[in-house]
Amino acid sequence: MSETIVIAQGGGPTAVINQTLAGAVLEARRRHPGCRVLGARHGVRGIRDGDYVDLGGRSEDELRRIAATPSAALGSTRDKPDAAYCETILAGLRKVSADAFIYIGGNDTAGTQQILTEASGGSMAFVHAPKTIDNDLEQNDHTPGFISAAEFVASAFLSVDLDFRALPGIYAGIVMGRHAGFLTAASAAWRLDDDSGPHLVYVPERAFDRARFVDDIKATMARHGRCIIALSEGISSASGRSLVEDLIPAEMLERDAHGNVRLSGTDLGQAIERILAEDLKGVRARVDTFGYLPRGNIGMISPVDAQEAFDAGVFAFDAATRGGGSVALQEEDGKTVIRLVPLSAVAGKTRHMPDDFLEPDENRLSAKGHAYLDRLLPRRFDPGMPFV
Amino acid sequence: MSETIVIAQGGGPTAVINQTLAGAVLEARRRHPGCRVLGARHGVRGIRDGDYVDLGGRSEDELRRIAATPSAALGSTRDKPDAAYCETILAGLRKVSADAFIYIGGNDTAGTQQILTEASGGSMAFVHAPKTIDNDLEQNDHTPGFISAAEFVASAFLSVDLDFRALPGIYAGIVMGRHAGFLTAASAAWRLDDDSGPHLVYVPERAFDRARFVDDIKATMARHGRCIIALSEGISSASGRSLVEDLIPAEMLERDAHGNVRLSGTDLGQAIERILAEDLKGVRARVDTFGYLPRGNIGMISPVDAQEAFDAGVFAFDAATRGGGSVALQEEDGKTVIRLVPLSAVAGKTRHMPDDFLEPDENRLSAKGHAYLDRLLPRRFDPGMPFV
Repeated sequence: MSETIVIAQGGGPTAVINQTLAGAVLEARRRHPGCRVLGARHGVRGIRDGDYVDLGGRSEDELRRIAATPSAALGSTRDKPDAAYCETILAGLRKVSADAFIYIGGNDTAGTQQILTEASGGSMAFVHAPKTIDNDLEQNDHTPGFISAAEFVASAFLSVDLDFRALPGIYAGIVMGRHAGFLTAASAAWRLDDDSGPHLVYVPERAFDRARFVDDIKATMARHGRCIIALSEGISSASGRSLVEDLIPAEMLERDAHGNVRLSGTDLGQAIERILAEDLKGVRARVDTFGYLPRGNIGMISPVDAQEAFDAGVFAFDAATRGGGSVALQEEDGKTVIRLVPLSAVAGKTRHMPDDFLEPDENRLSAKGHAYLDRLLPRRFDPGMPFV
Repeated sequence: MSETIVIAQGGGPTAVINQTLAGAVLEARRRHPGCRVLGARHGVRGIRDGDYVDLGGRSEDELRRIAATPSAALGSTRDKPDAAYCETILAGLRKVSADAFIYIGGNDTAGTQQILTEASGGSMAFVHAPKTIDNDLEQNDHTPGFISAAEFVASAFLSVDLDFRALPGIYAGIVMGRHAGFLTAASAAWRLDDDSGPHLVYVPERAFDRARFVDDIKATMARHGRCIIALSEGISSASGRSLVEDLIPAEMLERDAHGNVRLSGTDLGQAIERILAEDLKGVRARVDTFGYLPRGNIGMISPVDAQEAFDAGVFAFDAATRGGGSVALQEEDGKTVIRLVPLSAVAGKTRHMPDDFLEPDENRLSAKGHAYLDRLLPRRFDPGMPFV
């Protein structure tokens, strides 16, 4: 099948999304020499606008090099097409006589592929290849991009904890994650011992309570002489509203086209700083917004993540020859296996971090949470223990 | 000489300050087998309080492992002793019959050693071994700790620039640096081509002007379709006040014991976010506070930096046998050489980034600035060029 393949990247970039691109392109060329592979620039916008890169003509060397480069080489988009937009995309795909469209992204991307599948009436194969640092795709044990970002977060917290052993105080690092706490939980992956930070981990899945937060910090300071805190940008109060929404006047909130409040700013950092200054007076306290640093850091690309992302791309092409669907990384006997699942099982759904990854009623990881991280993120550093 | 050596670490930790510690300890033991090496916990506080670690009894393996570990293994302090405090320190050193005191730190640390030298009347050797990510010590071409932190900043900006090629907008990253712009300038070290960010670099040495800032961003957006900005936390307006002081009400400013305004918070990030929201309405804009992430990141330790820091420690012990002084990393024919300089030439002085490291009247690096960074930070990554 498949004389013409269109491929695109959607949503937030990762460290390894270009591996998936390269995997799909190279597999298409291997199995169908002479096939046409068109890369749409900026996701479905490129299809709408007829803006393509001819990926068939690129050398394997160039593709391998771009594979090792973070961020989405074709450009990305936040567009979440509705039915009408999907008709335009379908017309664009027909215009280039596409036999298959492989779209690399998260659950919104899977949603687009589901709409397109239904709209096309089976005339074309639509494949979703997984990608997200949030690790929040249903049907997946973990997602390409997560491990590299998680290693960044784990090493950052290991390092900051060592820093605050030297100069004690309270440290809060705010980590991306609107609905799922996996990436924030990864902050605890490489703790050295029971004294190590992060001592407190706040994720969107557990309601945030200011009084409890302050009490937890006081208890930690009493016990460890310092307090290292990891917070998801999407933490919410019991009312269900994000902390940012609770603390910032409504007219100052920035919303995207889908009405989602922007969380990646420094608002939450400012709010946390205010709480610490008001309720823990006189204690040295510092707040950093990790923001974009973990999600595609060229200095912290996991070889395992890179290989899995590449393999997912290879599999995605195969899936196109089998009629389409969603590519999923699953776990079997402690190993990662790649399987094809229905788009409907992934599209528009958010996988939350299991509640038992945290201790009941506590803001720290459980043995189960640690076991999950240990499997995906074997410790990469073995530092000496400080003399303090 | 030197039967008893006291060693301590002061100021903000770095990725390699423990290399200097290990270098000095191992050299002391090599040249004076059986000598006593006492590590004071939390800098001069440990001497004041008689709180020491016996470093003579630690295995070389343990010392090599702690050398490879970021942050100050002995703990650190922000204490800047006055004459009376120095008398207490001197009494503490005499109590343990110290022949020499090696203090690893920045210009305040050198200042302490200068006061102690004068107060001791030549009865003891005082050595300052250099350490600072700010790279702001006089007499030094660069300082141990800078290269590792600079590589973190360079790779972060290289990565974020790739991210914003995929999803365009304005990005501002705030980097540590109260008075010296070296670390912020390092953001431009690994630009890939003329289109690469950071497109704008703001350092404490150049007055910050809001209107000019906004104009520069507009021009950059028009030319590159995105705008990546690196800002030092210590940027100041023409009035000489830091931007944070200009924008935050005086009663809300946090000051340390020396009256310095705290800059490491998210206040500046908030201020920049406000400027972007007000003056560049509707443009996607994101601000991150790098804060503590660059200064001792275990995933980004430069082998060159590590070796130079170790060598500075070895040299520091030698300097103790020669009566003391300040250890300086200097440049000769493109190589780093270590020399002993007078404490007075370093103590309490700040080395600023040379004005000609930036283009005249522009917020971007000059050829001279790039040449300096190229020498210290040869490019470590060779990514592929994106298709957008």
